[in-house]
Formats: sequence, structure tokens, C-alpha cells
Amino acid sequence: MIGHDPLTTYKAAVIGAGAGGLTVAIGLSTFGHDVVLIEGDKVGGDCTNVGCIPSKALLHAAGVGMDDPFAWVQAKRDGLAAHEDFEMETDDHIHLVRGWARLTKSENDAHTVCVSGPDGDVEVHAENVIVSTGSKPIEISIEGLGTERLLTNEDIFELKTIPDTVVLVGGGVISLEMATAFLDLGSEVHIVERTERLIGTEDPLVSATIEAALRSRGAHMHTSASIKRFDDLQQTAHLTNGDTIVGVDKVLIGIGRRPNLAGLGLEDAGVKFADTGIIADDWGRTSVEGVYAVGDATGNTATTHGANAVARRTIRAIALPIPKFGKPRALPNAVYCRPQIASVGLTVSELNAIPGTGRIRLVKHLSEIDRGLTDDIEYGFVAVDAERFTGKVLRAVIVAPDAAEMIGMFTIMIDNGIGLRKLFGTVHPYPAYSQAIGFITDDFASATFRKLPREWWAMMRGRIAKHRRRSTS
Amino acid sequence: MIGHDPLTTYKAAVIGAGAGGLTVAIGLSTFGHDVVLIEGDKVGGDCTNVGCIPSKALLHAAGVGMDDPFAWVQAKRDGLAAHEDFEMETDDHIHLVRGWARLTKSENDAHTVCVSGPDGDVEVHAENVIVSTGSKPIEISIEGLGTERLLTNEDIFELKTIPDTVVLVGGGVISLEMATAFLDLGSEVHIVERTERLIGTEDPLVSATIEAALRSRGAHMHTSASIKRFDDLQQTAHLTNGDTIVGVDKVLIGIGRRPNLAGLGLEDAGVKFADTGIIADDWGRTSVEGVYAVGDATGNTATTHGANAVARRTIRAIALPIPKFGKPRALPNAVYCRPQIASVGLTVSELNAIPGTGRIRLVKHLSEIDRGLTDDIEYGFVAVDAERFTGKVLRAVIVAPDAAEMIGMFTIMIDNGIGLRKLFGTVHPYPAYSQAIGFITDDFASATFRKLPREWWAMMRGRIAKHRRRSTS
Repeated sequence: MIGHDPLTTYKAAVIGAGAGGLTVAIGLSTFGHDVVLIEGDKVGGDCTNVGCIPSKALLHAAGVGMDDPFAWVQAKRDGLAAHEDFEMETDDHIHLVRGWARLTKSENDAHTVCVSGPDGDVEVHAENVIVSTGSKPIEISIEGLGTERLLTNEDIFELKTIPDTVVLVGGGVISLEMATAFLDLGSEVHIVERTERLIGTEDPLVSATIEAALRSRGAHMHTSASIKRFDDLQQTAHLTNGDTIVGVDKVLIGIGRRPNLAGLGLEDAGVKFADTGIIADDWGRTSVEGVYAVGDATGNTATTHGANAVARRTIRAIALPIPKFGKPRALPNAVYCRPQIASVGLTVSELNAIPGTGRIRLVKHLSEIDRGLTDDIEYGFVAVDAERFTGKVLRAVIVAPDAAEMIGMFTIMIDNGIGLRKLFGTVHPYPAYSQAIGFITDDFASATFRKLPREWWAMMRGRIAKHRRRSTS
Repeated sequence: MIGHDPLTTYKAAVIGAGAGGLTVAIGLSTFGHDVVLIEGDKVGGDCTNVGCIPSKALLHAAGVGMDDPFAWVQAKRDGLAAHEDFEMETDDHIHLVRGWARLTKSENDAHTVCVSGPDGDVEVHAENVIVSTGSKPIEISIEGLGTERLLTNEDIFELKTIPDTVVLVGGGVISLEMATAFLDLGSEVHIVERTERLIGTEDPLVSATIEAALRSRGAHMHTSASIKRFDDLQQTAHLTNGDTIVGVDKVLIGIGRRPNLAGLGLEDAGVKFADTGIIADDWGRTSVEGVYAVGDATGNTATTHGANAVARRTIRAIALPIPKFGKPRALPNAVYCRPQIASVGLTVSELNAIPGTGRIRLVKHLSEIDRGLTDDIEYGFVAVDAERFTGKVLRAVIVAPDAAEMIGMFTIMIDNGIGLRKLFGTVHPYPAYSQAIGFITDDFASATFRKLPREWWAMMRGRIAKHRRRSTS
């Protein structure tokens, strides 16, 4: 419903109606609790309005060759946003207050949130506060580049026409997905990345594969480079490595995100935070009792499903008076470029911190399996880093047409302690891409089965070295 | 290598170099055993030459709009066949003998196989015999229909031109995949199915969904019908339900398959068989010690991965002198039409034999999830039948663009005893189609969590009823 009672102390005040905030609000409502949901911008947050939803809609529209792809994107986005808005306005337990929130010092087990909005200033009282204010794109200024050419994820989906030449600054998720879409739309696509490879959070084989795939479709890569200066009259970008890009229509900046913490009053409320976001544990708990933070505002996750996963634990923490047991589930990542990228398990740097003696890496390229042959797949693979002997999956990464759907097999394995040894013999349908996983388990078995004592010793050495490293660091 | 020594008793004689036979031959060779591989037709069998490989290549070529799709199909098929042939001719432990085999009565723990081929008649002696002779399409004659219009999977991939109008007889896997391909190629497609629905081995929701999807793309359905008579001059098919199909260029028969057992000498050797195929257990063992049968020749499985799965157990039975423990793994099925169909677990009739009180069915349509919205998915769902209380997966079926890659999550769950309750909380990447599985586990939890004693009792009643039914049947 719209509006709240300033004299009531609600079960929770949720600040920000994006992926994380909506999950908490709806979850607590389902448990019968009354919640105030505070949003100064659009319900649905970045995911619905300027993130996952419009980007996936654009990838679809561009992939199937729609005549007016941006009209499709805007229709889908606005339809979902209107639906989510309506749901919040009509939920009996959710009290929607439009405005910008500021935390104050808590008193008597209750928190007061001040909201400034179109209807003036109001106060919200609640037993718990959830900060789910999200993030916004990091902006940079490029000499000579006017705002009419400059885009971020917040305005790219408002385009009316397809740019002839688009420059994507940054080699992360946004650039990979938008490169895929704009190549389909017929644009000339340039990616400018400061470091030496795209998608630096993944392992180098992912970068090399996706760079080759994009290049084969006509994309231009400018790595170890940034835009030094832009000549607006000539529509030319001059890069630090000497490259020039001519005829530039639009420049999309996708170099990272910064949590939305300004004006929230975190210091007054005593909530600890860093540059990366609010300090919160895997239940969303912050340094202040009863104040939680989920999603991009924390810097712990940067995905909708990551925000949802923590938000579900926050709901449990608030609504269920039971001990907080249970480790968080594995959090997969997916990039919906073509081919898709998906990974789960340790991060690459966490993996590299584990001594190499105790682990084994197995890679199967899709070009080596039968479906790769029939479907002409040049770029793609499944790679698994596993503990020796047990085959416990430390990290899995997939580059494949359907990687986002395949990664769930590894997510389930990690969550349930199923290693490659247990997976040996599992039957995958022929000739699915998933057969690559069957080959990997076979390779693991033939690499480790015949000399089990040696494998056991290798695993133990790895564990001991890991323990020593931890003890001394 | 080519040829064998008629005086040597080999570890095994493998009859038929298709999916199952090649797996056994290569597997035993890897263990260092000498094997005679007998093949009268092409190495690679149906899968490589007239089945999975050319059909997937055609689906790909048609889907991406290649100019000469059949040239692609033939090139891919011939390339793989030549590769497999070369591998068999050059493997040090595999002795390739070209010809048609006949079993004889076994004597002194060794078996004698007589082979008639291009080089005359020879004898092969082996400790073990593996019958992997595959199957062939069931043929029917239609009044008035000449052989120049009649196709099966054995000649359809030899087409040079795209037929304007094609009639697919039978509503099974072959017809669904070929309907998808020929619709992409621009043909007018008719499916004639004797029963009231397509893909009758799956549950009715699958049939309804795939029929609607094909119809939306222009396919014509003629269910509860068969071709009564064909008028070749008018190119018109007259159906038993009164429908007529005019301008017919080709008629593809895909109504089922029959095991290749003729001339094998099974009676002489004492190997028991039925109309559906050789009687064999899940290790491939037949009624005669040392004689095994795998793949389509048994009627136990009709897929390449099914033949492989049994063949791997046959290798273990022959090569490893350890007790035969371990249940067979779950066998998924996949149909590569668009959307794809994939299922795993009990068959529909096995499921229906379980009393309804103890189980629960959960369905999530892709149109209800966010990716369904952005990607305009009208036809598709994930459906799970699970045991109440535990959430043990009895059967899962998926109709989705990537169903063949998604089904592995359920295969792993079934193999490892992970039910929906354990899956609760598993994180799927947003906005992948796999999120439907997350909704299903949530729905299972909310349907069963609040009244656990009642759920436990429902499960027990189901188990008791199942036990009673078994005891009295």
C-alpha cells in the first residue's frame, strides 16, 4: 500500500526497492510482518530499469534481428517496472514511501529513518533497517568528450537509433554483453580496456577465448589502453597506446560501480563502511544491531542473484527466531555475451592462493566434442580446478552457448560436496555440450585413479601447505 | 589395425562398430586388451552416419540459415566417420574385420564368431562377445507411395535440395527434430501421428507445449491419423481422418526402430531375445556366460549415451576382476527440437504407477520468469515430480531453449540422492532459465515446510501403498 503511519514501529524499514530490497520486503511480508519500503527512484532498482532486464532484452532483440530493438527493450523494461511498482503499491504488508532515506542514531531497540521526498519530510520507525541502496556507475571525464556522446548503463537503453560506431570503455560484464548486442545490430564495436585483458576477474583462458570470439565477429580490441583525448569535431578517440578510433558516435563507460552511500547518515547511525561499501556479514548484519545491508551497497556481491541470496538469509535472521546456522550457498556468476561465460566456486585469486601441489586443472574444449563439430563451435570450454584425490570442485568456469544454464551442475556439486570422483559415470545426453563435463570427470579419473596413494599424498601436501600459509600469514 | 589372426583367442569380439561397440572396443583397448571389431557397414554406426550427428548438423545449419545445409551435414558426418574409421584402423589393440557376423555355440570358455565379408569367410575366437548391432527403422508401405518420395533417417541426410512440402510420419524424436529443421529451411511441414499426441513417451504437458510451439511456427499437426493412401500423380496424401495434404514432395517415416538381430545366430548360441531385442542386464550380460549385448540391439536403451553408459559397465565387467557393485546411473533423454525437451528419472508410466498420495508435482513456466519476459518465451517449463516430505526427485522434465544442458542438474541430484529440500537455497544465476528450478524448490518448501508431520505421513502412506501394490502384483 502507499504511505505509512509515522507513529507505528514497523518490523522493518527497507531502504531501496531494488533486487535485494524487494526480496527482503516481499519475504517479510510473506511471513506476515509489516514493512516500510523507501524508494526515491524507480521500484525495481538497477536490475529492472538499467541492468539485467534491459540488457537481456537488448541481447535477445539484437540476436533475433528485430526491426526496432530499443522499442522492445523499453517495452519489456517498463512492463516489468510497472508490474513491480503495482505489486508494492498493493501488498497489504508493504508500506511504500517515496523519497530518500537518512539513518539516525538508534534508541530503545528501534531505529528512526528520516525520509525526504515529494511529500515533504517524514519519519519511519522500525525494529530493523535494511540498507539496499545499490550502486551507480563510476564516471570518468574524457578530455574533449561531450555528454551527448557519453553513455553509461543508465542511459544506453534510452537510445532511439543504432550507433554506427560505438566505443566500450572497460572490459567487464557490461562491455562484453553490449559488444555482443551491438555487433548483432551491425555497429562497429571497439573495446578499450586499461589492463592487458578483458574480464580480468576470470582466468586468462576465459579472456583469450572471449577476445578471440568477439574479434572473429569483427570487434576491435584495444587492451592496455585508455582514451587520452577525444576530438569531437572529427569524432575521433585518441588512445594512450597510439591507436585512433574514427567516426565514433557513442562512448559507453562500464568500468565499475560505486555503492550508493551518500546522504545515508551511516556515520551518525554508527554503521561501519569502506570505499567498497557497507561492512556486512553473510547474513547482511552490519556493525549496528538491527541494521542490515544487502546487495551492491555492501560490495559483497554485484549481482541480482547475489543480492537475493543474502536477502533471503536476512529474512531468516529477522523473521525466524532460530540459531543462525548454515554456510552461504555457492554464488555463480554469468555473463550473457555470446558465447556465455559462467563460473562458480573460489575466485581466481582465492584459487591461486591454494598451493598448486594439491590441485589439478582439467579443461575440455567444445571443439573437441561432437556437438562442437556439428555446431561449428570454435570458442568455448569447460574448465574445472579440483582438489587432487577427492576431486572436490574448487572452481569451475564455462564458456559455451548455454554456460549460464550449465554452471548449475557445478553449483549443486559445490553446495552438496560432490566432487569429480562421485560424478564419474554420470550420464550426460548425447550430443549436448554438457558432455564436456563427462570427459572432464573421465580425465580426472584416469589422471588420478591408478595411483591413489600418490594422489592422496599430493592432496595432503596441498592441505598442509595451505594450512602453513594461513598460519604464517 | 586391419585384420586379425584366426588362431588367436582374443579378449573380446565386438560385433558392430556403432556407439556401444566403439565404446567397448576402445575401452578394452585402453586397458591393454586385444579386441576384434567386426563391422559390415560403416564404422560409427547410426549415430555418426544416419542419426545424432547429421541431425544435429542439419539443425545447426538450418538454424543459422546456411545456403547449402545438406552439404554441411554431409561434410560433418563424413569427416567424423572418416576420423572414427581411421582410429579403428590404426589402434594397436583393435583388429578391424569388415563383414557380417554370426555367433555359434560356445565351447571351452571361448566363443567363435563366423564373419562373412568382402574377403570371404573367416572365424574369430574370443573369450567374450559383445553384440552391438544396433537397430534399423521400422518400414511401412503406404498405398500409392513410391520409394522415390519415401525417406527414413537412413536417406534423409542425402537430400540435395530442400523439399517444398514434407510429411513426417510419427510424432517421436526424429519427427520433432526434423520438423524444427525443415521449418527453418522454409518447407511446409506436416506431422502425421497415429495416437492423439506427439512424443507420447513424455507427459501430456510436454506434448501440448511442443505441439503449440511447432504450430506457432507454421507446422501442421494431424494427430489420431495415418496416411490411408497416396496419390502420386496429384502428390496428395489422404489421411484416415479425412485430411488431405497436397503438393507432397517427401514423406519421412520415423515411427520406431527394430533391433538388428537377423542372421546373428542367436538361437544357435543360446542367447535369449525378444521382439524388442536381446535380453541383457544393466552390465550388458545375456543368458550366455561371456556374451554381452549393448545399445539398440537390446531394446534397453535407444540413445547413444544410453549405449555408452551400459558399454562402460560392460568394460568393467570384462576388464576389472572386482565384484559388480553399483547401480546404473540415471539416464537422461534429450530431443534437440526448438525448444528442446529433456527428461530424467522414472518414465511417465513408472511414475504413474506410484500412488499419488506420496508425491507432489511442481511446474514453473518460463513465461513466468524474468528471462522468459526479456526473451519472449511462450513455450517452455520445468516440471518436477518429487516424493513428498523428502523432495526426492522421481522425474524431471524440461522444455526450454537449453533443456539438454539444464537436465544435468537433475541427473546429478538423482544420482546423488539430493532432493528438492536439499536444493532449497541453491543460487542460480539471474536471469538464467535455470531460475525456474529455484522457484520450484521454493514452491516445494512452501508447500511442504509448514506442516512437516502431515508431509511425513503423506510420504509414508505413498510408500506403504507402493509396497502393497508391489506385493500383490
